[in-house]
Amino acid sequence: MMTASQSDRLNKKDLLGIEDLSKEEIELILNNADAFKEVLTRDIKKVPTLRGKTVINLFLEPSTRTRTSFEIAEKRLSADTINISAQGSSLVKGETLKDMAKNLEAMNPDIIVIRHSASGSPHMLARLCRFSVINAGDGAHEHPTQALLDMLTIREKRGGLSGLKIAIVGDILHSRVARSNIFGLTRMGANVRVIGPPTLIPPFVEDLGVEVYHDLKEGVRGMDIIMMLRIQKERENRSLFPTIREYARFFCLTKERVALAKDDCLIMHPGPINRGVEIDPEVADGPYSVILNQVTNGVAIRMAVLYLLSGEKG
Amino acid sequence: MMTASQSDRLNKKDLLGIEDLSKEEIELILNNADAFKEVLTRDIKKVPTLRGKTVINLFLEPSTRTRTSFEIAEKRLSADTINISAQGSSLVKGETLKDMAKNLEAMNPDIIVIRHSASGSPHMLARLCRFSVINAGDGAHEHPTQALLDMLTIREKRGGLSGLKIAIVGDILHSRVARSNIFGLTRMGANVRVIGPPTLIPPFVEDLGVEVYHDLKEGVRGMDIIMMLRIQKERENRSLFPTIREYARFFCLTKERVALAKDDCLIMHPGPINRGVEIDPEVADGPYSVILNQVTNGVAIRMAVLYLLSGEKG
Amino acid sequence: MMTASQSDRLNKKDLLGIEDLSKEEIELILNNADAFKEVLTRDIKKVPTLRGKTVINLFLEPSTRTRTSFEIAEKRLSADTINISAQGSSLVKGETLKDMAKNLEAMNPDIIVIRHSASGSPHMLARLCRFSVINAGDGAHEHPTQALLDMLTIREKRGGLSGLKIAIVGDILHSRVARSNIFGLTRMGANVRVIGPPTLIPPFVEDLGVEVYHDLKEGVRGMDIIMMLRIQKERENRSLFPTIREYARFFCLTKERVALAKDDCLIMHPGPINRGVEIDPEVADGPYSVILNQVTNGVAIRMAVLYLLSGEKG
Repeated sequence: MMTASQSDRLNKKDLLGIEDLSKEEIELILNNADAFKEVLTRDIKKVPTLRGKTVINLFLEPSTRTRTSFEIAEKRLSADTINISAQGSSLVKGETLKDMAKNLEAMNPDIIVIRHSASGSPHMLARLCRFSVINAGDGAHEHPTQALLDMLTIREKRGGLSGLKIAIVGDILHSRVARSNIFGLTRMGANVRVIGPPTLIPPFVEDLGVEVYHDLKEGVRGMDIIMMLRIQKERENRSLFPTIREYARFFCLTKERVALAKDDCLIMHPGPINRGVEIDPEVADGPYSVILNQVTNGVAIRMAVLYLLSGEKG
Repeated sequence: MMTASQSDRLNKKDLLGIEDLSKEEIELILNNADAFKEVLTRDIKKVPTLRGKTVINLFLEPSTRTRTSFEIAEKRLSADTINISAQGSSLVKGETLKDMAKNLEAMNPDIIVIRHSASGSPHMLARLCRFSVINAGDGAHEHPTQALLDMLTIREKRGGLSGLKIAIVGDILHSRVARSNIFGLTRMGANVRVIGPPTLIPPFVEDLGVEVYHDLKEGVRGMDIIMMLRIQKERENRSLFPTIREYARFFCLTKERVALAKDDCLIMHPGPINRGVEIDPEVADGPYSVILNQVTNGVAIRMAVLYLLSGEKG
Repeated sequence: MMTASQSDRLNKKDLLGIEDLSKEEIELILNNADAFKEVLTRDIKKVPTLRGKTVINLFLEPSTRTRTSFEIAEKRLSADTINISAQGSSLVKGETLKDMAKNLEAMNPDIIVIRHSASGSPHMLARLCRFSVINAGDGAHEHPTQALLDMLTIREKRGGLSGLKIAIVGDILHSRVARSNIFGLTRMGANVRVIGPPTLIPPFVEDLGVEVYHDLKEGVRGMDIIMMLRIQKERENRSLFPTIREYARFFCLTKERVALAKDDCLIMHPGPINRGVEIDPEVADGPYSVILNQVTNGVAIRMAVLYLLSGEKG
């Protein structure tokens, strides 16, 4: 299935963040994901690429969709998968993450996919251990496979990323999705802006090469892509915004607001969506929404990353 | 392994309930289950039938036995299985079941086995999504694979279902097992009666073609089969019956009460059993109990259903 | 891979405890584990030994490391694995362990690995059911695969077990690890002593062939091996010892205390370790610590046990 150029390995042991990736590395991953998408159209959607390899999904924050997407990707590559979740893990017994990592390493897994509430946890694992580490979301830091699947989706629909005008809207401050996309999209030559209330925009975000807007209507004007973020309802009472209702009044993406962007502006969202909070159902289910394409591309991206990291260690 | 007639597919995308099945369709499933029972006697109890297919077990109500039975069936058919349970699912994050379903669909699973506390949930999934849906229990509505395994067990022990006298005893009102069995057994030509206190018999149940008895001793007289239901101890204080002790006094199946049925009357129970509540240990463990045969047949029935739904979509 | 002598089967259906094993049986398991360690050095760390076999991991006490170690061992032997944990199990619904076991048996698994808080649970399963049972820890009784992996580690590092001086330190009273090791190490000809405060030493422990010391410094003198136990912080307020801090003052294994043992004395711990409580980080991470070798050997021992029990039943 793979052509010579597609079989090139990433010269990396781990995928920790988009910040570390060059334009060429991002393109290598996207090209491999394209190849795996072809596999996913077959009746038998399975290849023997990772046969005999052990992948541990270490999800120390709850997650259905990302864990499921990784697990499907792993099984379609014929890997053996082990799931470890927060509850019932020995972290509960007071073991440090470092000790847990060294213990897992002693069992010789090939790849560990980790989600953790503390920024930098995957980096610590990667530094300490021989196995490859894939960051499936660390605190408010990075969520690289999400940004990669977003870039795959945009490239598929628009033929490329360079020169596109892309707005990321919502709680930029707490969003690892936003950070990873900012790194990736700017590196690929897109023009990126972030939109949100001042309390949810990180200080000095302009230094990452993005513009800042506080008014949604003004911000979406002329955009090729609008990428919405999930608003965490749990933050409602932490004085970052008055109420969910108030937030929605100014930042919910409605049909009227989308109309201010380009005619064929794509609507994206990493999910799970809060209907009527950050996005109107009419928009989420509308003709320019690519939200479900993102999910499909998630499996292909994860297959590509697992494949590219499974070769000889760099 | 399969003969020509056994390889007939169900002309259905989903198995949502027994109510939808014709006599011929029920027989097709039972015949295929017979064939799979033969596989289960082998040393290597595994066939490549679903190799490369992805089955998601979406159990949004807790369950060990049904999930385990499905998972064993899936693995013996060589499917790749993914488990999603209530805790840790993004439903917790406020996502609707519909959005969750569309997201799972975007990952291209072949079959989703769903258990959900809301009646009709599997039907919604089936209507919205391309994948096949198997109802593993929806609220107080249906539990079709349970009724199929019950019918397989009876057919195996009695050679057929037509004309048999079968009593279903207990909390008929809340029981999806009772509903599915009433649909199936009456369709196969059995004479079915339900027995329970008036508060636990659904109104108009006679319209489903069954007789109603409120006295266990009277009801079991002359029966070929007594099918007990699990009493939910949680209901004790909801004024549907006075106390568990009081319920047991009138409705516990004791040896003396079984003696009023036919001499070789089979005793069934979907499990888990409450010893000394709805069934006496002497009866549960007695010579005419087929409770464990039901469990064994559960794996074969689930293999048959998975197999029959895994072909081209109808 | 296996030579003729290695393919000898254990003449046992189950592995319930070390107490039941002869010296020859222990050696058979250790020799097979050596052979599997070679498999674990390959790029494809997988053999088809248990293809088509179903192994259920029934962990009714929380555990990450032991469950993960077993699951990796099972998958590297190509078994189909099913995980059942305490939460969401029908034991919650009031089913007895006996009924649960008979139900699982009716689904025809080949091997059940059980961890349970009640001593003797695995023995009950083994007596009642056809499948093979592996005890993964029952109450304060036995944890046989832990003792086997400990013996494998010692044998690897010291060439044998006979005549070695081994101290087991900590909460001997509640430790299944200590009990299994006492049975195994004494049977293999080692000289074993236990060290701990009087409240944590079981009465009549001398009858098992070990000496008792209450002073750590005195006890470790001249030892070849010091095997630390995890102190359960939950016991702090049950009046068995004053406080964790007080316990650590007398029984924490520090560099100074290790210096009283033999120069090349090996340091062992079943994990997860409480740094600064029962073991000082300098010692845990020091040159004579074999704690991570124990973890690696755990996978090999479990592969060996699964393999040896998977043949014809004795």
